[in-house]
Amino acid sequence: MTWAAISTWRMSFDGLSEASVLLDKGINAGDAVEKLISIVENNEHYKSVGFGGLPNEEGIVQMDAGFMDGDTFAQGSVASIENVKNAISVARKLSENKTNSFLVGDGATKFAAKNGFEMTNMLTEKAKKEWQGRLSANHQEQLRAYDGHDTVGAVTLDQQGSMAAATSTSGLFMKKDGRIGDSPLSGSGFYADSQVGAAAATGLGEDIMKGCLSYEIVRKMAEGQSPQDACDQALFSFAKTLKDRYGSCDAISLIALNSKGEWGVATNVEFAFCVSDNEHEAKIMIAQQAAKDRTKIFPMTEKWLADYQKRTESTID
Amino acid sequence: MTWAAISTWRMSFDGLSEASVLLDKGINAGDAVEKLISIVENNEHYKSVGFGGLPNEEGIVQMDAGFMDGDTFAQGSVASIENVKNAISVARKLSENKTNSFLVGDGATKFAAKNGFEMTNMLTEKAKKEWQGRLSANHQEQLRAYDGHDTVGAVTLDQQGSMAAATSTSGLFMKKDGRIGDSPLSGSGFYADSQVGAAAATGLGEDIMKGCLSYEIVRKMAEGQSPQDACDQALFSFAKTLKDRYGSCDAISLIALNSKGEWGVATNVEFAFCVSDNEHEAKIMIAQQAAKDRTKIFPMTEKWLADYQKRTESTID
Repeated sequence: MTWAAISTWRMSFDGLSEASVLLDKGINAGDAVEKLISIVENNEHYKSVGFGGLPNEEGIVQMDAGFMDGDTFAQGSVASIENVKNAISVARKLSENKTNSFLVGDGATKFAAKNGFEMTNMLTEKAKKEWQGRLSANHQEQLRAYDGHDTVGAVTLDQQGSMAAATSTSGLFMKKDGRIGDSPLSGSGFYADSQVGAAAATGLGEDIMKGCLSYEIVRKMAEGQSPQDACDQALFSFAKTLKDRYGSCDAISLIALNSKGEWGVATNVEFAFCVSDNEHEAKIMIAQQAAKDRTKIFPMTEKWLADYQKRTESTID
Repeated sequence: MTWAAISTWRMSFDGLSEASVLLDKGINAGDAVEKLISIVENNEHYKSVGFGGLPNEEGIVQMDAGFMDGDTFAQGSVASIENVKNAISVARKLSENKTNSFLVGDGATKFAAKNGFEMTNMLTEKAKKEWQGRLSANHQEQLRAYDGHDTVGAVTLDQQGSMAAATSTSGLFMKKDGRIGDSPLSGSGFYADSQVGAAAATGLGEDIMKGCLSYEIVRKMAEGQSPQDACDQALFSFAKTLKDRYGSCDAISLIALNSKGEWGVATNVEFAFCVSDNEHEAKIMIAQQAAKDRTKIFPMTEKWLADYQKRTESTID
């Protein structure tokens, strides 16, 4: 039976591998995507997601997450939530609600605490040091999307044909208190329709949400485009428009999967992602912007991986 | 020179009238839409927006607002902000930022206070009484979109051909602390592209955001559909899908304007809206769902207005 999964950045490899084992055993798409994301959240080495995520300018780790069930369109999101070990699990729980399914700030944190989610201080010593280092440097520099890792976004297709999409991030390092990006926003950070496909985004949220890019990709797949064409066309036509009209377009990377298990990726930076299906083992791939508004995709190299490992484990990168 | 404006609910009439005078004098679309929304926020009789808005289940008025400049796609949003007189003005100010343009919770409130926005307790005696009344009744009943008023959303086209969209709401009465709906979300609550048109939504935010309806309307107009066709098709096809797949679709009303100043409205309830342009004075219209997935639109009657006046001014409705 067909199943498939795709997820953003090198950091999602362990999560995708675990989700692949589960999907192969017949787990549903929602459980698989939640598991995938939570494994990334739990790894303290990843500075843009969950435990070990870099804090806002006040030294507080504030997290955003979103979940969507492609069968029912049920959605749940949290934004600027604090001290919760797995923001994605709170978002998924909220997706069961007809109202009050998107909670932010203290209200989101209180909901998690009251509903038995594991609460913990998400600021690691390593992240605190990085924050202190930035404080003593000039922290007025323009915030940018991370280089090499950022929001973890993932999309899954299970053996029953159900799809799910999910995201989780600690957002921009040194962001303002309460700043949220595209990750928890329906249609911008994620979108899923099991009859068509699903998509997720990573990069500068403020730019991604100007184009509702995840919704646009799913819509293009509904018109019959392949996931690859849908991602390339959504990204490059929007990036061009944004440069013309807004004056700039920051880093954006997009992943998509259709209901047949075919996948696509587009990026305007160097973007690593992970992908697997019932016929292919989990692997890391690299994507780069190519000529003629297309994305070039090739297998991850040993050198790339070694460089990545060095960057991830350094105190300041 | 052509200019036009459209806005949700009867409560926006004074704001739209004032914005119309200004648009006729040549004010820009962003200033006009901010003025329109702020007049609704300032009126204490309107229980779903700004001062006098009904509180969350803890008795706190938490507001959401969004702003989009259709020339540049610049966006700003606040969600779950407290004690600020004009949430829309904070959202608009944030739209000047390349990052940190969407702030929620305490961070949003602090930003407003630090940046000189007028701060005030938004809970009126009337709203407090209504909250106390609901507390002593059974407040576990299912939250629903308001009947007869809800988010104020507005779209403007100025004489230079620029467009803007904006929203503001105090959200669902008795919502959970930190709950946000579609109003501050790009593509769901609002979207604007001056070369095409703009749209805004009101109704149950949790359902609207499942369909990214404002983005979808603008997209359909970009394909050449009239604002009326775009609104009807976006609403009724999505409502059908949501009923099939999610099991229900709550109240949704949509407004749109294209770059020529033509407008459209769709609703699955009874929906009042206000509209004006360089050739037509500001007026209140009523929309109702009609047969064959169309919306029927007719002028507001004296009887409807008298009933509305009675409802708005009663302590509990």
